[in-house]
Amino acid sequence: MDANPPGALAALIDALRALPGVGPKSAARMAYHLLQRDRAGAEKLGATLGHALSSLRHCKRCNNFSESDICPTCANPRREQKLLAVVEMPVDLNMLESTQSYNGLYFVLMGRLSPLDGIGPREISMDKLLGRALDGVVEEVVLATNFTPEGEATAHMLGERLREKGLKVTRLARGVPLGGELEYVDPGTIAQAFRERRQV
Amino acid sequence: MDANPPGALAALIDALRALPGVGPKSAARMAYHLLQRDRAGAEKLGATLGHALSSLRHCKRCNNFSESDICPTCANPRREQKLLAVVEMPVDLNMLESTQSYNGLYFVLMGRLSPLDGIGPREISMDKLLGRALDGVVEEVVLATNFTPEGEATAHMLGERLREKGLKVTRLARGVPLGGELEYVDPGTIAQAFRERRQV
Repeated sequence: MDANPPGALAALIDALRALPGVGPKSAARMAYHLLQRDRAGAEKLGATLGHALSSLRHCKRCNNFSESDICPTCANPRREQKLLAVVEMPVDLNMLESTQSYNGLYFVLMGRLSPLDGIGPREISMDKLLGRALDGVVEEVVLATNFTPEGEATAHMLGERLREKGLKVTRLARGVPLGGELEYVDPGTIAQAFRERRQV
Repeated sequence: MDANPPGALAALIDALRALPGVGPKSAARMAYHLLQRDRAGAEKLGATLGHALSSLRHCKRCNNFSESDICPTCANPRREQKLLAVVEMPVDLNMLESTQSYNGLYFVLMGRLSPLDGIGPREISMDKLLGRALDGVVEEVVLATNFTPEGEATAHMLGERLREKGLKVTRLARGVPLGGELEYVDPGTIAQAFRERRQV
């Protein structure tokens, strides 16, 4: 066989597989696309990768990606310093911000407990969270991890650790979503909404 | 809102969207993964991108990616010089090679006709193919584009242009695949297999 891809191409295809969800066929398709149809995009990708790797660090307070030691959100004195919401990923933080209904601070775990993937308490920066939550100013920690099995397990474990330190720990409410029709909501959600029904 | 992603992160997410099939949500997920869980992979990706962009060119004969002016396949004197198979992409060439049933040469279009995506005869290097096929040595051109509507249209157009230059033009056979059960093969394929039935 003399049809193996040239070395530089094979190396690029292999490197693209570092992207989550990208297998050998997608990686080959991506490499051909970049080299054949979008060399400018490929150059931009290479440059921004290098810049991101060298300039981004984790905010010392909230653990989110930041270009400074303390990110703008944590440095904002107008935010409620007593409230700390714990989220899995930066996208979750952005989603909470977009609701304009929360003015406290954040801690970003950058993941969720997932023992099968080798992601334990250390990988989600639990010690950094405990240090942050026990700064003497925070009074309430709002667990805002996802309502998936892994997100729930993460919230459960963090809740135990934070409560034993004497902090007030809350969790986002579960229930029927706005606009939800009971016919199309899953039974588990409805059962939960029944148990947590509120007087009106 | 002071929760916008820092500039270097936003630029990386934007650049990742150059990859085919990657929208804003996947791009964000990829960026977080690279920065948080696989910085070594990110550095390798940046380096291989740069190396591929600077070292890969198109083989002057077959148009495939190559690190030399003439790729090893085209430079191989043991290959049948009278036969030229036309494929859409390098992966198709690799697939044909893996069958070990073809010993001629290749031409890689690096695409297929797709007017809606702005891919016409010029983008698939038709002039380069005509020059290659009319070198006086090639006697038969085997059209091995995919059997999709776009691949068929590409084969049809190329076949017309090559035949009018006096070349013998063939197309890979269509029919029931090996191991195919008629019950599960689509009716169009069976109709084709009927029309092109062979005496045994």
